Amino acid sequence: MRSKYQEFLREDIGSGDITSELVIPVDLRAVGRITCKEPCVLAGAQDAAEVFKELGAKAIKRLEDGTRVRKGQVVLEVTGSARSLLAGERLALNLIMRMSGIATLTDDLVRKCRRVNPKVRVAATRKTTPGFREFEKRAVILGGGDPHRYGLDDAVLIKNNHIRLAGGVREALKRAKRGSFTKKIEIEVEDAEEAMAALDGGADIIMLDNFTPAAARKIAAELRRIRRNVLIEVSGGISPDNIEDYASAVDIISLGWLTHSCKSKDFSMKIERI
Amino acid sequence: MRSKYQEFLREDIGSGDITSELVIPVDLRAVGRITCKEPCVLAGAQDAAEVFKELGAKAIKRLEDGTRVRKGQVVLEVTGSARSLLAGERLALNLIMRMSGIATLTDDLVRKCRRVNPKVRVAATRKTTPGFREFEKRAVILGGGDPHRYGLDDAVLIKNNHIRLAGGVREALKRAKRGSFTKKIEIEVEDAEEAMAALDGGADIIMLDNFTPAAARKIAAELRRIRRNVLIEVSGGISPDNIEDYASAVDIISLGWLTHSCKSKDFSMKIERI
Amino acid sequence: MRSKYQEFLREDIGSGDITSELVIPVDLRAVGRITCKEPCVLAGAQDAAEVFKELGAKAIKRLEDGTRVRKGQVVLEVTGSARSLLAGERLALNLIMRMSGIATLTDDLVRKCRRVNPKVRVAATRKTTPGFREFEKRAVILGGGDPHRYGLDDAVLIKNNHIRLAGGVREALKRAKRGSFTKKIEIEVEDAEEAMAALDGGADIIMLDNFTPAAARKIAAELRRIRRNVLIEVSGGISPDNIEDYASAVDIISLGWLTHSCKSKDFSMKIERI
Amino acid sequence: MRSKYQEFLREDIGSGDITSELVIPVDLRAVGRITCKEPCVLAGAQDAAEVFKELGAKAIKRLEDGTRVRKGQVVLEVTGSARSLLAGERLALNLIMRMSGIATLTDDLVRKCRRVNPKVRVAATRKTTPGFREFEKRAVILGGGDPHRYGLDDAVLIKNNHIRLAGGVREALKRAKRGSFTKKIEIEVEDAEEAMAALDGGADIIMLDNFTPAAARKIAAELRRIRRNVLIEVSGGISPDNIEDYASAVDIISLGWLTHSCKSKDFSMKIERI
Amino acid sequence: MRSKYQEFLREDIGSGDITSELVIPVDLRAVGRITCKEPCVLAGAQDAAEVFKELGAKAIKRLEDGTRVRKGQVVLEVTGSARSLLAGERLALNLIMRMSGIATLTDDLVRKCRRVNPKVRVAATRKTTPGFREFEKRAVILGGGDPHRYGLDDAVLIKNNHIRLAGGVREALKRAKRGSFTKKIEIEVEDAEEAMAALDGGADIIMLDNFTPAAARKIAAELRRIRRNVLIEVSGGISPDNIEDYASAVDIISLGWLTHSCKSKDFSMKIERI
Amino acid sequence: MRSKYQEFLREDIGSGDITSELVIPVDLRAVGRITCKEPCVLAGAQDAAEVFKELGAKAIKRLEDGTRVRKGQVVLEVTGSARSLLAGERLALNLIMRMSGIATLTDDLVRKCRRVNPKVRVAATRKTTPGFREFEKRAVILGGGDPHRYGLDDAVLIKNNHIRLAGGVREALKRAKRGSFTKKIEIEVEDAEEAMAALDGGADIIMLDNFTPAAARKIAAELRRIRRNVLIEVSGGISPDNIEDYASAVDIISLGWLTHSCKSKDFSMKIERI
Repeated sequence: MRSKYQEFLREDIGSGDITSELVIPVDLRAVGRITCKEPCVLAGAQDAAEVFKELGAKAIKRLEDGTRVRKGQVVLEVTGSARSLLAGERLALNLIMRMSGIATLTDDLVRKCRRVNPKVRVAATRKTTPGFREFEKRAVILGGGDPHRYGLDDAVLIKNNHIRLAGGVREALKRAKRGSFTKKIEIEVEDAEEAMAALDGGADIIMLDNFTPAAARKIAAELRRIRRNVLIEVSGGISPDNIEDYASAVDIISLGWLTHSCKSKDFSMKIERI
Repeated sequence: MRSKYQEFLREDIGSGDITSELVIPVDLRAVGRITCKEPCVLAGAQDAAEVFKELGAKAIKRLEDGTRVRKGQVVLEVTGSARSLLAGERLALNLIMRMSGIATLTDDLVRKCRRVNPKVRVAATRKTTPGFREFEKRAVILGGGDPHRYGLDDAVLIKNNHIRLAGGVREALKRAKRGSFTKKIEIEVEDAEEAMAALDGGADIIMLDNFTPAAARKIAAELRRIRRNVLIEVSGGISPDNIEDYASAVDIISLGWLTHSCKSKDFSMKIERI
Repeated sequence: MRSKYQEFLREDIGSGDITSELVIPVDLRAVGRITCKEPCVLAGAQDAAEVFKELGAKAIKRLEDGTRVRKGQVVLEVTGSARSLLAGERLALNLIMRMSGIATLTDDLVRKCRRVNPKVRVAATRKTTPGFREFEKRAVILGGGDPHRYGLDDAVLIKNNHIRLAGGVREALKRAKRGSFTKKIEIEVEDAEEAMAALDGGADIIMLDNFTPAAARKIAAELRRIRRNVLIEVSGGISPDNIEDYASAVDIISLGWLTHSCKSKDFSMKIERI
Repeated sequence: MRSKYQEFLREDIGSGDITSELVIPVDLRAVGRITCKEPCVLAGAQDAAEVFKELGAKAIKRLEDGTRVRKGQVVLEVTGSARSLLAGERLALNLIMRMSGIATLTDDLVRKCRRVNPKVRVAATRKTTPGFREFEKRAVILGGGDPHRYGLDDAVLIKNNHIRLAGGVREALKRAKRGSFTKKIEIEVEDAEEAMAALDGGADIIMLDNFTPAAARKIAAELRRIRRNVLIEVSGGISPDNIEDYASAVDIISLGWLTHSCKSKDFSMKIERI
Repeated sequence: MRSKYQEFLREDIGSGDITSELVIPVDLRAVGRITCKEPCVLAGAQDAAEVFKELGAKAIKRLEDGTRVRKGQVVLEVTGSARSLLAGERLALNLIMRMSGIATLTDDLVRKCRRVNPKVRVAATRKTTPGFREFEKRAVILGGGDPHRYGLDDAVLIKNNHIRLAGGVREALKRAKRGSFTKKIEIEVEDAEEAMAALDGGADIIMLDNFTPAAARKIAAELRRIRRNVLIEVSGGISPDNIEDYASAVDIISLGWLTHSCKSKDFSMKIERI
Repeated sequence: MRSKYQEFLREDIGSGDITSELVIPVDLRAVGRITCKEPCVLAGAQDAAEVFKELGAKAIKRLEDGTRVRKGQVVLEVTGSARSLLAGERLALNLIMRMSGIATLTDDLVRKCRRVNPKVRVAATRKTTPGFREFEKRAVILGGGDPHRYGLDDAVLIKNNHIRLAGGVREALKRAKRGSFTKKIEIEVEDAEEAMAALDGGADIIMLDNFTPAAARKIAAELRRIRRNVLIEVSGGISPDNIEDYASAVDIISLGWLTHSCKSKDFSMKIERI
């Protein structure tokens, strides 16, 4: 089940690490330490450890994924041939930097929203980097967020395009009901009328697309009056700047920002002879 | 040579697009248009076209990658079965949004720096998303930047860890010289003394790591006095905020920011029956 | 997205179809017809067509998957080089024979059960042939059955082993509730007490494991009295012989028999020169 | 050489075992025992052991593949993290249940036929589940059967379609003789005349297709009178019900039933904390 | 079934053909002609054509594989984007040059040996380039040779190491007889005594390992006296220089030289604008 | 990173080593020794060791790759199950025989040329066996040669076809200069005029294509007079017979012969019970 790391290593190493093959003796052993350069929620340390294992080196986690890390703390210590450490360095750092960026931002937004509504969920979307989704979803979970769907095979999610092509909310939901009983049915709505049709059609989750906080609150209240336990999600146009405004209105706030516009956190790796 | 798109589609589709299989008739034909939602330099439209071709749909580019796009412009038009359009929608948008984000930021920084020094190059690094590097490098090129090394097999680049393990700049360069004559040799230096040793050792490119603009300018002048055509690169701690300050001092400015901390550009796709 | 057929062809062809390479001229063109040898619900004809396309031949479906077929009817007609037809023959037949076997049995059981309870669902399990699940699930759907989970990433399904390891139904459900809101939660229970705990713990679906029809009916009635819309599934020890007895008691009947003990339906392919 | 198990695991696990990730602590260790639920010839235990090894657990076989197993006997004992045991459980059982079903049926038919003719071979065909052939052939061997060809690259087997396209038995055999001397040549014949032509053309093995037992016996005697050591196989329309009738007439009886219409044997796995 | 060409292209192209991407306009169309530079038996032209098809170009064979080609003759003509022609050029030439080298040498040796014994076969071995065997075996066939086994799954071939480990020729053959009736059994012997034991044990083919021509002739005569149609192969220490001496003594002469020590034939490709 | 060995093993083993499965008990343990049969420079021993590791056996190198080996010396000793040794034997020998052939020839030519010019480099080309390039390049390096480009993504190399299509040396070089600063630019020239234009256009390396030794010497002198440190390579029509004549004239001599027309060195493996 480790082929993803092999694929990533092949991307970086290609036909060989020509610098290390020239500059570093084949039998030189070394220790490497990955250090945090700015405060964050750690993610990807487990993945970095797997990378080095894949290369025959031994990695010990000094800190666990999901914990708060301070600048200067060592998160991973790796022992092995110097060449293997150099071969894995960049990939390991890329994993940790990017995943910690996502975990930290998720954690920030979850805290912000939970201060307003302790039960609200902050969720990711499918707006992830192609080929890297499982890592980005994992980072969201480590930051306390909800991964939402991993792919099109996960839950039924009827979006605007589906509704338009199917000829309306009611017809789309009627068709979706023929699917497996194991799946939830979610539907994206654009106004109050569609939302009411969605409730009536038996949707498990209603996603309010591009609603203002006030509009979301109003329709959510109406929907809950009719079916108390319907799940209400808001999405579209949500950023770190306005997310708090939605926190008290709905059950779930989902935003692509977590994975498509997040800054990495800085880490570095120092390698020394043993 | 199209397997990367297949891998990305498999990630998103998994065992099947259960929503469309339920809601959309198998023989419904449709047209989809991808529209730009904020001004940017377009990248990924060619890739999006390949995604739809992979799914048996026909894609026509309305605008070419590398061009400036305004809000509201249609960049790609796709015709095919409604299910195939829905299956490719998210991946196509993820490619365009992320790649256009990188191309636009690169273009901005290149313009900024070229105003100061028309010959300077803005280069990416290997701080890319694992598994997605070729797309991110391509976006950098479309934005007018330099891709720098694609991987460890590309050019010889002796970094701090190599120098420490090899026992100094001179020794590391001596060993590197045994490599193939087809490769350039670059070395990362931390101070003026190392820079001089690098020049003396015959490095083709000298990378100043974490130098202030003033320090970079000073050492660059000295190096060029001795070998006129040595290439000088600066890297480390460079962001969109301070990049201009380096533009007049060196030949190349490289920064991970282009690929690890870039915001996506917004695009959407509307699908309608034919 | 066609790699599965390539993998299957490689399994059968290996380093080459040595018989055809010796016996059949490279430029001989032929037509092949796949004929049904016993009444059944057709499945796999689309897949067989893909196999021949993969080999450069042209396949025309004479009958659609999911329809009832009589002995002697031609279901697929293929034109191409004689060698390509011979190379795909066995795989095409293996797909159709096995999938039609599953679709037919499913259809039989669905009809039987629906006579008793028009709303009951007959569902498959994960007891499928390794590597061939997507085809077996598809055959179940073509026979009118429910595919149930495609894999462990699909819905949360807490089984006996989970309950034992987690320390009871309540604790297991409490932990499961932390999962993504997009997933349904199903739990397998072994007696009335566990069933009640499951209902109380908020399970979406309660699976009665190895209950007699009478016991299933009794507990189902009690559960529905408390929560009207809870879904009740029965599983374990169900075969074509006793399935009807459960039809009026529950919402879903799942059985591994559909995929692990089903007989194939007979088809043959005759190839002639054009 | 273990990629097949990885592929099967990926099919079942997909983006992750979401139930265990929620319900089972990451560091909980457990022991699992796979127990036989109905008498059979065991097959697949070695494969099940490989599955768990792939997942980092330790598997000890309590009984060897190919031996007779009684209801209630433990065949495999696995120790490892509870999550890894749960991740491999279904695949391991699917392998053992299906392979033991095939091995048991093969063993039954071999015993039945050998009582009549101690030298007769019961052979499988290429009517296997796509992607799973090597496992089904292995199960046939464990049951005492002959695997026959693994694929089209194995031995030369001239079938009806080849004969028709080549213009007759004699011409087809003449062409086949040009093949490598390392391969046997088998040919399928439909009547006595074709059988004689096949013998005359130098076939190593003559397969009587859809002959009655009496007809098979008659032509076999004639063929052996001419060439004592020619191998005679019968195939087509053979099932567990009529197989004995052919046992005294021929050298080999081949039937698709072994792999395409065989019922699985029941096994279960109980997992407990250590 | 074209994945091998894709793998080869990936090996040569890696992350991109950087020269053509810089130097050749993306829309420039061109025609390329592959010309023979020294007389040979052509092989690999079909493979070269597949390479260009894989790259979206159109290839027309001017001469067929297996024919004698003179210096200066064009064997393949390709039309397409200039970049695609340049991307496939080296791989196409590598295939043709190497395969034509093997086909030509095989043809030479077959002619030489057939002058002495018109029925003798010249066969290859498994001493092929790892990963490239199917192409080398194909080239041998195009040159009129016999491919011998493609791999360990092909025919039973008991070699010295097997005999030593099994405890002698007789025991090894006895065990081998338990294998599938579809396979021939070949055994390698080192002296007359082993050869007699092999005949007695029922081997289909007896391979004389490292025999002089005289010794081979003597033992072959004795073996044939006992079993007229036994196949006799000689192998070990055979080169283009001494092969003729064996031609009259045995049925098959196999030599690794065909694939492990063969010189390539020279071809070149000229590409011009259309 | 070991998938290449797995791919090679799959090529040779296919659906199974049927001989060993029949003849060799599953639990028989053995030791195997790979012995050199003719003097050579050893290469591929490390790869052979990896092959056996892949099969679960333990390999100990008795001699290191790159060293001179005498006839009769043992280079590798392997311990493990007899079946695993037999499964890896042929592949291991194929790797060592071919790679040692290349390393030895390279070493011979390097010595020959260095006697004339101690600084000259002997380089390989991209005329390698498809799919096996990394091993052949490695063998060249072990023999003291230069690998030259691994693929089209390595360095910019403008060849005749590029020049013709681009409209001349100057234009081609101008375009190439837009590429990444990390790459060297090499250009192939056919006469003195083109060579001068190449120098003028700023090429890092000038490759003289099909020059006589005298012509190469003359133009090299002229080029160096203008730019002292320009690298000059000669290629085309070079064989072991004429290579020395070029040694004093240029910096690099590249020839396809090293990889496309090299004879293997003989090695054998003897396996015995422990």
